[in-house]
Amino acid sequence: MAHLKEIGVAVLGFGTVGAGVVETLQQNGELLTERLGLRLVLRGVADVDLDTDRGVAVDRALLTTDAPALIERDDVDVVVELIGGSGVARDFILQALKRGKPVVTANKKLLAEHGEELHRVAAEHQTELLFEAAVGGGIPIIKALREGLMANRIESIYGILNGTCNYILTRMEDEGLPFDEVLAAAQAAGYAEAEPSLDIDGYDTAHKAAVLASLAYGCIVPLEQVQITGIRGVAAADISCAARMGYRIKLLAIIQGGAAGVEVSVQPTLVAHNHQLAAVGGVYNAVLVHGDVVGTTLYYGRGAGRAATASAVVADLADVALNLRVGGRRWDLSGVRTKAPVVFRDPGEIVARHYVRFSMRDQAGMLAKVAAVLGSHGIGIDSVMQQEAAADAQYVPVIFVTAPARDTDLAAALRTISEQADVTDRAPVRYRIEDSE
Amino acid sequence: MAHLKEIGVAVLGFGTVGAGVVETLQQNGELLTERLGLRLVLRGVADVDLDTDRGVAVDRALLTTDAPALIERDDVDVVVELIGGSGVARDFILQALKRGKPVVTANKKLLAEHGEELHRVAAEHQTELLFEAAVGGGIPIIKALREGLMANRIESIYGILNGTCNYILTRMEDEGLPFDEVLAAAQAAGYAEAEPSLDIDGYDTAHKAAVLASLAYGCIVPLEQVQITGIRGVAAADISCAARMGYRIKLLAIIQGGAAGVEVSVQPTLVAHNHQLAAVGGVYNAVLVHGDVVGTTLYYGRGAGRAATASAVVADLADVALNLRVGGRRWDLSGVRTKAPVVFRDPGEIVARHYVRFSMRDQAGMLAKVAAVLGSHGIGIDSVMQQEAAADAQYVPVIFVTAPARDTDLAAALRTISEQADVTDRAPVRYRIEDSE
Repeated sequence: MAHLKEIGVAVLGFGTVGAGVVETLQQNGELLTERLGLRLVLRGVADVDLDTDRGVAVDRALLTTDAPALIERDDVDVVVELIGGSGVARDFILQALKRGKPVVTANKKLLAEHGEELHRVAAEHQTELLFEAAVGGGIPIIKALREGLMANRIESIYGILNGTCNYILTRMEDEGLPFDEVLAAAQAAGYAEAEPSLDIDGYDTAHKAAVLASLAYGCIVPLEQVQITGIRGVAAADISCAARMGYRIKLLAIIQGGAAGVEVSVQPTLVAHNHQLAAVGGVYNAVLVHGDVVGTTLYYGRGAGRAATASAVVADLADVALNLRVGGRRWDLSGVRTKAPVVFRDPGEIVARHYVRFSMRDQAGMLAKVAAVLGSHGIGIDSVMQQEAAADAQYVPVIFVTAPARDTDLAAALRTISEQADVTDRAPVRYRIEDSE
Repeated sequence: MAHLKEIGVAVLGFGTVGAGVVETLQQNGELLTERLGLRLVLRGVADVDLDTDRGVAVDRALLTTDAPALIERDDVDVVVELIGGSGVARDFILQALKRGKPVVTANKKLLAEHGEELHRVAAEHQTELLFEAAVGGGIPIIKALREGLMANRIESIYGILNGTCNYILTRMEDEGLPFDEVLAAAQAAGYAEAEPSLDIDGYDTAHKAAVLASLAYGCIVPLEQVQITGIRGVAAADISCAARMGYRIKLLAIIQGGAAGVEVSVQPTLVAHNHQLAAVGGVYNAVLVHGDVVGTTLYYGRGAGRAATASAVVADLADVALNLRVGGRRWDLSGVRTKAPVVFRDPGEIVARHYVRFSMRDQAGMLAKVAAVLGSHGIGIDSVMQQEAAADAQYVPVIFVTAPARDTDLAAALRTISEQADVTDRAPVRYRIEDSE
């Protein structure tokens, strides 16, 4: 192993994932050297806080608070950004790329918000930006989509991409508990943040969906183009009704291409029990990809956490190292974007079956009124289910399952119904339905 | 797109998959050019039979019976071998590699039997041999294992790798039919070969398992090291008994590493209904990989067929093309093999729960005799199930589910029982049990 080429690695951000990356390089360093024929050597770890115990032993001399100086070092060949957010993380990534140094990041928020700039700067400086850890934790979904399915026009991607949401929905179903109670338990157990909005309101899933869509369709997907609904509104009653009808509620990222344009959305969705994504429970993630040549493929694994994310970061480091050895970069995402811009689909034109829960006045004739409005908007009804309510309740939950309907038509019908104060006391809840193929 | 680099492709073998590759290059050629920034150009297709209609339109001038001449052409940069088998396929691959031309193949039999030679010659001539299509059809499992999970020590791989076997087992379960009847139907429908041994006796799965194990553990796995049991012996009664106990029978490739050495085996296995592989039905394949860093990941998709296999072949072509552009090869499997040889585990030392079906004399005291022999070999019994039999049957099927037991101990006990002609009239059937985690 004499004259083995060394690749110098700088890690920015010594939080959970940063410590996981350092630990993985220690634990499997020799194995990586055998597999790669070159050695990944940690040159330094930068963080503003060098005192917190990260649960991994690192030579104190490797720690620094001066990230810019670490990036500049001649013996640093690749920079790993694990700070998160779109503040200094962006500055440091740009600094590295402008020095022609490849960057590995897990930062989906930054990619979703500033991906175009970052990929452009990487291309301008003949280097690359890799981001396997940004979506699906340890699942090599970026590599599968970009390389493994290279021969395919991507028809659709359905993803469970946020472990916190999936954990909450799974526990709500398994234990029949309300959202607030499970969220509080998840926060106590460390599965949800004290400020949970990024996860439960769907933004994190949207960032990841934007990244996947950009790979699938060779375009930058502005976040404004992503329709986002989180899981705050999902009631225990919705989950139990869905279960009785043969469905589970999952927060799905839905990405679809086609003649009508690209759809990117995030929403609680009823998936049939025999759907490939229905069995994905707890903090696991899964991505179902339909390609025009390969057909259906599925990728499943831990969507977050120190070790799983570190696995993806180190895989990117290995890729970068192999590319540095041959002196080239393999990917130039900016090149893809020289094509005609992608057309985004008008969300109102999307046709799907829906689950709609009304809070309906408990009085004869109400059901007929709702059905009449739906009918007048051309919306077929597949089934109706009335839930039990307290004896003295003035309003009772009633679920309608619609036939496939245009979103605009359904929205108009629901608006009309909501305005009828003698029928309902609030806007209905509605979720899309995905039957299995 | 002026001066766009062209990569010349030669396809050897114009059968089902060859035609699929040609069709995919036609259908998604422009998309591939956009994604790659270079153009894959078909220079020729070689086959001994140029007259059969392959269901794809090809310029007659591209067809040739002279594979060696096609390989030699200066404008051929990469050779795709889709002839199959270990005869001329090996000769042609060696010819291409010795000319320094990268080769893409789907030939698991050849890789399992001659992989060491092929990888060595590729390394000697500074070129590469890619084989994504050899395992799991369109599922990018080779890439996942070799690149996506690079940071992981692979603890185990469980795979459903043969679509024909999975189709037969699925139909046997769904329709309660015997093996012979389903095999005949599968042959009539084109899901099984007229000579089905390669599939149903487990050899095809073993070839694929050997390829996966070689990647996971950086070694060549001789086929003699693979324990192989096919599905011919699986009775409808086994499937229904397993179902009643909460299991499905799947033909599993099992690859496990560890201090005791590497195990590579292929066998009908009872997997619990909530196991991730239990839901994989019909001709689909799936691979469950446990890595020490990433934890559990799963990959699922069509395991065979013209289009799915073509998707994997063209993905390899894209990889080769990107590598040719930067003038390097990324992989050198031969280098991995310079390490100390892998120790294979003594199959007799494997500890597992088992399903054992005896054909037992229908007479009082027999069950106690069997239980006594098992006990005397230290094998615990988790449950016993006696099946209904015809009123006049002398022997009845009785199922024992064992506690975890050493294979050698179980084999000795079963041998002892088989020798007791007053207890049973034939050797028992036994299958390993995999509970979910």
